[in-house]
Amino acid sequence: MPNIKDVANRAGVSVTTVSRIMNNRGYISESTRKKVYDAMEELNYHPNEMAKSLYTKKSNLIGLILPDVSIPFYAEEAKHIEEALYMNGYKLLLCNASNNCIREKEYIAMLQRNQVDGIIIGSHTLKLEEYTKLKLPIVALDRFLGKDIPVISADHAQGGSLAANEFIRLGCKNVIQFIGNTQVATPANEKNSTFSEIMKNNNINCVNIEFPVNFFSFENYLPFIKTALDANPNVDGIFAVDTIAFAVIKELSFRNLKVPSDVKIIGYDGIAIGSIIAPILTTIKQPIRDIANSAVSTLLYLINNDSTIVPSDIKLPVMLSQGQTT
Amino acid sequence: MPNIKDVANRAGVSVTTVSRIMNNRGYISESTRKKVYDAMEELNYHPNEMAKSLYTKKSNLIGLILPDVSIPFYAEEAKHIEEALYMNGYKLLLCNASNNCIREKEYIAMLQRNQVDGIIIGSHTLKLEEYTKLKLPIVALDRFLGKDIPVISADHAQGGSLAANEFIRLGCKNVIQFIGNTQVATPANEKNSTFSEIMKNNNINCVNIEFPVNFFSFENYLPFIKTALDANPNVDGIFAVDTIAFAVIKELSFRNLKVPSDVKIIGYDGIAIGSIIAPILTTIKQPIRDIANSAVSTLLYLINNDSTIVPSDIKLPVMLSQGQTT
Repeated sequence: MPNIKDVANRAGVSVTTVSRIMNNRGYISESTRKKVYDAMEELNYHPNEMAKSLYTKKSNLIGLILPDVSIPFYAEEAKHIEEALYMNGYKLLLCNASNNCIREKEYIAMLQRNQVDGIIIGSHTLKLEEYTKLKLPIVALDRFLGKDIPVISADHAQGGSLAANEFIRLGCKNVIQFIGNTQVATPANEKNSTFSEIMKNNNINCVNIEFPVNFFSFENYLPFIKTALDANPNVDGIFAVDTIAFAVIKELSFRNLKVPSDVKIIGYDGIAIGSIIAPILTTIKQPIRDIANSAVSTLLYLINNDSTIVPSDIKLPVMLSQGQTT
Repeated sequence: MPNIKDVANRAGVSVTTVSRIMNNRGYISESTRKKVYDAMEELNYHPNEMAKSLYTKKSNLIGLILPDVSIPFYAEEAKHIEEALYMNGYKLLLCNASNNCIREKEYIAMLQRNQVDGIIIGSHTLKLEEYTKLKLPIVALDRFLGKDIPVISADHAQGGSLAANEFIRLGCKNVIQFIGNTQVATPANEKNSTFSEIMKNNNINCVNIEFPVNFFSFENYLPFIKTALDANPNVDGIFAVDTIAFAVIKELSFRNLKVPSDVKIIGYDGIAIGSIIAPILTTIKQPIRDIANSAVSTLLYLINNDSTIVPSDIKLPVMLSQGQTT
């Protein structure tokens, strides 16, 4: 059976170069990569990473548990996380918890059985103990999972404040804020509280409408929004995540209410598809790629440093993106 | 170190039950699952699947290579594929080829090193030989990758025909069809050819506008569409995948052209987010979940049957979903 040395000789490069390409570390020119891959193929060389893992006790596998990768925000997070892991020579095991705690538990057990080096969790259906007792490096995306698990998120307080001050500037008097279910322990709750507080301090009527837990499927959006608008006929400003904001715009068009003259709308997230949808949504952009990169670098720190120092939580700045809905 | 028997005793169930839960095969009541997981935790039992894999020569890992999981259509495919794999006790390694052949090649080599049991490929940056010479079960999503690689796709000829006949029914005379790059060997090209042919046979002017290879990032859509509309000012019907259709609607609104009175639009794909965007897009729905399920069941057939019989390609029916843009 051929070994790495045979590949290096065949490709006319050093063993180090072959190993760097195999482990996807450091810059190697495309021509050199091509030479090495051609040599591997000619020799039909396929090092068994699982055997290697058993020896090195490192799988270079990372688990990512999300509620649902088909939700645009999560899809973008997954893409950027996979990208960052790839650049560091890691592979991504994708798990959709589908808001099901049995399933999330099975995934976590499966990931441990598969000796993943660490887990990035954006799901939240289990009790905190379930996460804290895991003997694995874990990073949480926008979730509080336990005191020793670092949380990566956008600066949601800043986001709530940016949106609130925009509605004030625009002279709105009756605002609806759609908020995630408050049972979920997430930094995003700071967005809601900051927003409500600023509204209150400025004597602006603010109704918070809370979604059920894990309210993800689009077909549920419109009935929910209809009820909210029926109950608040004099609304002149709406603050909600982008996908809800799109559905709000749709429901308002059925009611012949004009955006922004009758109702002003500010979204939250800044998902990419927003850039091709009319009207252009005014939205608070989360730095999705930076969140993904920080989650990966924090996890790799935990994996590669046996230190007991837990990296501190990371809050990344958001920005207001002016569109046609305000 | 505890073994599976200890777990069974602790949980008060049979070893078979524990192993079925561990391999996620067959129905087990949630209460039994809970008992078994609790027992595993109390005993801190984590069977090493990698050691098992080396012995069984089966990793239960499946690689999925997509161009970009953040594109809504691929995000939905990834979700349903992961779901179907999970139900069958397999795990998903997600790879975003990012339209980069070096990277796609590295992924394929990586997946082989990691002893995946099979690969589902929706990407297409490599030469056919690169796929056919792989010694692994492979299923192609909407791509022709080689004569022994089964292709799962929607019935695109039916899709092209449904759209064409709808434009005829609506009396359109000058239609633009946006089409994917024809260098890509995909069954979707049948959509384009069927559509063009029916238009021609009915003396309707049909301009095909072809995208560059792997034209995925939303920011490129509008400039491209602007050019197309400038070159065809008298267009009264447009046929394009949903995301392009959204961007077309946006561009038409800038031009104060009314949809559908001035220009009728039919989308293609039927992505979920379309249901919350106004106006409701008339579109040809691909059965995304069925495509994912068929890809998984075909791949599992290849993995579990040493037969040299290659499953035939699968074409799944599409349907016209009536919206407000026609």
